[in-house]
Amino acid sequence: MPPVDDQRWVVAAAALAERARPLSRPNPGVGAIVLKEGRVVGRGWTRFGGRPHAEAMALEKAGSAAHGATLYVTLEPCMHRSARGPACADLVVEAGLARVVVGMCDPDPRTAGAGLATLAESGVEVAQMGLQASRLSLSGHEMFQRHGRPHVTLKLALTLDGRLAMPDGSSRWITGPEARAHVHRERARADAILVGGETLRSDTPSLDVRLQGLEDRSPERWVLTRGPAPGGWKVLASPERAHSMPGVRYLFIEGGAGAAASFLRADMVDRLLIYRAPILLGDGRPALGDIGLTDLNDAHDRWRREDIRPLGRDTLEVYIRSRQEG
Amino acid sequence: MPPVDDQRWVVAAAALAERARPLSRPNPGVGAIVLKEGRVVGRGWTRFGGRPHAEAMALEKAGSAAHGATLYVTLEPCMHRSARGPACADLVVEAGLARVVVGMCDPDPRTAGAGLATLAESGVEVAQMGLQASRLSLSGHEMFQRHGRPHVTLKLALTLDGRLAMPDGSSRWITGPEARAHVHRERARADAILVGGETLRSDTPSLDVRLQGLEDRSPERWVLTRGPAPGGWKVLASPERAHSMPGVRYLFIEGGAGAAASFLRADMVDRLLIYRAPILLGDGRPALGDIGLTDLNDAHDRWRREDIRPLGRDTLEVYIRSRQEG
Repeated sequence: MPPVDDQRWVVAAAALAERARPLSRPNPGVGAIVLKEGRVVGRGWTRFGGRPHAEAMALEKAGSAAHGATLYVTLEPCMHRSARGPACADLVVEAGLARVVVGMCDPDPRTAGAGLATLAESGVEVAQMGLQASRLSLSGHEMFQRHGRPHVTLKLALTLDGRLAMPDGSSRWITGPEARAHVHRERARADAILVGGETLRSDTPSLDVRLQGLEDRSPERWVLTRGPAPGGWKVLASPERAHSMPGVRYLFIEGGAGAAASFLRADMVDRLLIYRAPILLGDGRPALGDIGLTDLNDAHDRWRREDIRPLGRDTLEVYIRSRQEG
Repeated sequence: MPPVDDQRWVVAAAALAERARPLSRPNPGVGAIVLKEGRVVGRGWTRFGGRPHAEAMALEKAGSAAHGATLYVTLEPCMHRSARGPACADLVVEAGLARVVVGMCDPDPRTAGAGLATLAESGVEVAQMGLQASRLSLSGHEMFQRHGRPHVTLKLALTLDGRLAMPDGSSRWITGPEARAHVHRERARADAILVGGETLRSDTPSLDVRLQGLEDRSPERWVLTRGPAPGGWKVLASPERAHSMPGVRYLFIEGGAGAAASFLRADMVDRLLIYRAPILLGDGRPALGDIGLTDLNDAHDRWRREDIRPLGRDTLEVYIRSRQEG
């Protein structure tokens, strides 16, 4: 089978993994597909609370058809032998799979290549794709394993000229209903949402998920402040303290300009979601405060365009922080 | 022939018309195609200084093949019988064309429907498409005929957060080489370029066209100021005075924020060209000054997205001013 098909099946598994996010927390949301003679015989994704794992679900669906089949999975099968379930690498060997194609190696030190090694030693053919689609679908897991903090998305709803509100602070509405619905979907994919102290005091945002069927996905609410917080809100004293947000793998920053700038100054924004309205304000509140930039040259080569697409009358712009690390 | 093919041939004629811009000034840059039994037998576009007209060139190429053929032309054939050449409507009748499809009626009162009427009275089948592609390619002509002023494009080179320079004014470079080359191409399509007085004093921009083969397309240079101007620069005292810029059909505003805001306050910007760099500045110089907006609701429904596309590492965003007029 040519590699291009391998890639497409891993991308399909990454799409399945979206079903696990964020319900699998704090475990990574993984997707898995079992393919036998060109036919899908099993599909799986990490379930609520992290178990069963995606491979276990896909192999159970496949049953005896798994014998001699190929498993496509976004993350290296785990080697965690625990009371909560068998290690996936063991399950794969037992199921008699001929081949396993993984999107990325697991940075979790309990696996970190040991899963692939176990498979190879047992005679299973293994391939590791290093695919962007896998990495994006597991960005919260990778960030936590490598740097001990959540993956951070900064949302900005801006005009063409980069304003987020009128001079008096009014911002209802900059963006249209499609963009606002998309924000609710993005909230539903996060473990926690954060706003700045001033935004909390002036806007009292509810930050819940108002999408039919997803109301129970509303994430934890955090406020960036050195002071106290009202009931139902947790306090983050500084961006650096995000290293101790229990169970939070995906953090979604809703604003305002001060909180956004704080996280950018700390270089702790990994993804920008800009909802761009086709309007000009001229005078108005700027998108950001001081982000610590002193030389224009330093502003370059930090953000990579991931997606740009129409969203009703607005445009969604997605940028990913470029970092040198593998 | 189904209308969808008619549309495609008019769009093709509009692409040809691009060759006439801005060399045909002050005449409109028109494109024409003669189609005989599915084959192109003649093509034309308005020549330097406005003559010959596109139809005359296309019909001359077609020769006797024009008999019984269809003419696709972006603008209604003219009825100007002058010493500089015959009226195109007369030429079309003489050539024995069976059918004429025009992109738009000519708002010039000397024609304004009289060209199509002459054709119809002579037994030529006529169709008028009202196509956006024609209107865009003739926007300078339409604006001058309807409102007596040039069509105005405002160029902005901005960051994701809407900054056009660092706090100290430095802006080399916000955008990359592809975007800057595209600006030179857009300059070559304009009759005149304008900057604000402060930009002229602080940046001393040359504003010439530095593209191989197009160096002689460098447009007139104007400065928006109430004071005097250096040699080689013409003075515009206010946006409203653009009604008296001799022969200028396409005006390209290069900046800065003050000149841009002046034209927006006067509602005299028809097209926005935003070159968006994938960088954040935080603090910095804003894209625009006060544009006279007092209510957020009034900002909406003014700009229609015409195009968004990658340009090297940057993104080109094109917006057209939505106006109620036909």
